[in-house]
Amino acid sequence: MTSYFSSDFKLAVVGGGQLGKMLLYETRKFDIQTRVLDPSPEAPARLAANYFEQGDLMDFDTVYNFGKEADVITFEIEAVNVEALERLQAEGKSVYPAPETLRKIQNKGDQKDFYTEKNIPTALYTRFEKLEDLKLSLTANQISFPFVWKSTTGGYDGKGVQVVRKQQDLDKLADVPCIAEAMIPFKNELAVIVVRNPKGEVKTYPVVEMEFHPEANQVEYVICPARIDEAVAKKAREVATKVSEAFMHVGLLAVELFQTEDDEILVNEVAPRPHNSGHYSIEGSYTNQFEQHLRAVLNLPLGETASKTGTVMVNLVGEEGYQGDVYYEKIQDILALEGVTPHIYGKRETRPFRKMGHVTIANSDLSKARAIAEKVKQTIRVITK
Amino acid sequence: MTSYFSSDFKLAVVGGGQLGKMLLYETRKFDIQTRVLDPSPEAPARLAANYFEQGDLMDFDTVYNFGKEADVITFEIEAVNVEALERLQAEGKSVYPAPETLRKIQNKGDQKDFYTEKNIPTALYTRFEKLEDLKLSLTANQISFPFVWKSTTGGYDGKGVQVVRKQQDLDKLADVPCIAEAMIPFKNELAVIVVRNPKGEVKTYPVVEMEFHPEANQVEYVICPARIDEAVAKKAREVATKVSEAFMHVGLLAVELFQTEDDEILVNEVAPRPHNSGHYSIEGSYTNQFEQHLRAVLNLPLGETASKTGTVMVNLVGEEGYQGDVYYEKIQDILALEGVTPHIYGKRETRPFRKMGHVTIANSDLSKARAIAEKVKQTIRVITK
Repeated sequence: MTSYFSSDFKLAVVGGGQLGKMLLYETRKFDIQTRVLDPSPEAPARLAANYFEQGDLMDFDTVYNFGKEADVITFEIEAVNVEALERLQAEGKSVYPAPETLRKIQNKGDQKDFYTEKNIPTALYTRFEKLEDLKLSLTANQISFPFVWKSTTGGYDGKGVQVVRKQQDLDKLADVPCIAEAMIPFKNELAVIVVRNPKGEVKTYPVVEMEFHPEANQVEYVICPARIDEAVAKKAREVATKVSEAFMHVGLLAVELFQTEDDEILVNEVAPRPHNSGHYSIEGSYTNQFEQHLRAVLNLPLGETASKTGTVMVNLVGEEGYQGDVYYEKIQDILALEGVTPHIYGKRETRPFRKMGHVTIANSDLSKARAIAEKVKQTIRVITK
Repeated sequence: MTSYFSSDFKLAVVGGGQLGKMLLYETRKFDIQTRVLDPSPEAPARLAANYFEQGDLMDFDTVYNFGKEADVITFEIEAVNVEALERLQAEGKSVYPAPETLRKIQNKGDQKDFYTEKNIPTALYTRFEKLEDLKLSLTANQISFPFVWKSTTGGYDGKGVQVVRKQQDLDKLADVPCIAEAMIPFKNELAVIVVRNPKGEVKTYPVVEMEFHPEANQVEYVICPARIDEAVAKKAREVATKVSEAFMHVGLLAVELFQTEDDEILVNEVAPRPHNSGHYSIEGSYTNQFEQHLRAVLNLPLGETASKTGTVMVNLVGEEGYQGDVYYEKIQDILALEGVTPHIYGKRETRPFRKMGHVTIANSDLSKARAIAEKVKQTIRVITK
């Protein structure tokens, strides 16, 4: 059996942002040697890596040569050169999650087609090769306002997604391959993290509830467990498991879901990696999502996904109107609040809505945690000095 | 107000062993810049430090020059050059815990005298300048068998401590300044971690129960909370608080205690730093001991010391008869057990009884956690391949 712990075994992580950084903490706990690749010399994950390389994640040679030196390769971001990962896999390296899954997920049209093919519930949609085709379809009454426009590639954190309510909104859309998706009147946006290892062992984390910032289309609060009926939670975990198994996924899969007005569960989209909706798990879960991802990609037994306590997670994003050297105004004040743990990602420069950190509030009384989260949000500001 | 987070503020940590390593995780969470000094080029804490220096912790110039470049200085081991810390403090640097406290604690005779002076309950003892004086005292029936011999300096992890039951045992003792301490018939060995910041805010963690390995005199299991009466627990926390306040301590103070047969609480000894008896807090507490130490030395509000769940911590020490490249036999098997989190310190070489890591078992049912801990202990072995 491979010995990962305090050995010469090497794990490569493509991408060195905050997800990579938090994953790296866990590799330290296991004392696993790591290689990290990121375009930024100030990547948050740089410090805890045994070896750091600055390079373009979309460049075939860079990713291929970087991965070649490792035993297992994983990634913390979807925007990576898939061909290089495929080549590494073909040459016998373990690449988890699988490059073919990443390829499907990178293209939102292919992702939706996959759900349809696998009988996974998702909102109705139509694919278009260019903007003109979408307009023709509207004229022909094949689709109608309002709908959600999504660029099939390159979308991230609300970019590449637009709600289109009227004719003029069409002017904001880029002329790229896209989908038009039915707008779902939903009660809640939920997420379930599923973990699966190569042996096929699979577990789900509890359902979380996401509250979005109305303007930035970024998650503002993540509440665990979601305040929903047990039957709905059960259905959500079942649907998420189905998605993971359809992909024969290895590693974490974060499945974002809609709970419709009539309590249907629809898959919105997935991320094949640790996810913002699972940050609560560092404080809340018996095994946090980062350790869990590590266990999965190393084919170790999976850890417990249950929670030790209720949690609410607050994203810390750059305040509008500020750009430059970051300053966490009143962070001392939030440290005095009950059950608060801050996670500062280590980006020196803030800009509007940039993810700069998050704060977890742990409390056995979830409504108390939610109230403290509100206070955190109202107190701390990510600005410049 | 000083800005610690993602700024140019620098924290120096003297010592880079496993305690430094775990403290470093927390500095990453806060994005605080760190400097670490350790004699070993393979120090466990090396990887997550912004700056690492290899050097002798007992050398005045090394420690002084290392500390001079930082804003706040702390340490993770008692065996450091106190004069250098005193000089840094005299020159206006914040050194926490205080060098004068460290000086008292480094000498077990002075430590005991301090307890006597401050009216803190501790076992009766007599100080001797040399072995000959102790022998004369025995002959004169001023002390009698059995007693506990402790070298006043240099003791660590059971070294420098001997139970002396009969005349022949005297031959094992070094001819150094020492104390002879009355042997306390105790029910339990307990510990309480106290945290205090410069503002004087003070909190105690729950009382933990320690089970020692009979041979190595090292802690084998730490159980939180201790399975003792509430009145005894209350008394233990009060005594520990009194010790912290007597020292005007800043940072963590781990207070090891005896619970006597008639439920008295006596102070055994203290450690002015994160402590093995607090490792459970990473998984168990709302704020773990390492984050707490950081909050204290940075004069930030203290975090919550309550537990989210019951925990049992198992030390992983090198198996007798093995020395060389470490191999964690059957670590995969323990990962399959409920609520298990391993912490591998990253030492490449094992030797008998060397602290190589620890495992925390978290469970809302403490007796279940204790049973799983037993299984962990029986399964994993720290050996060579």
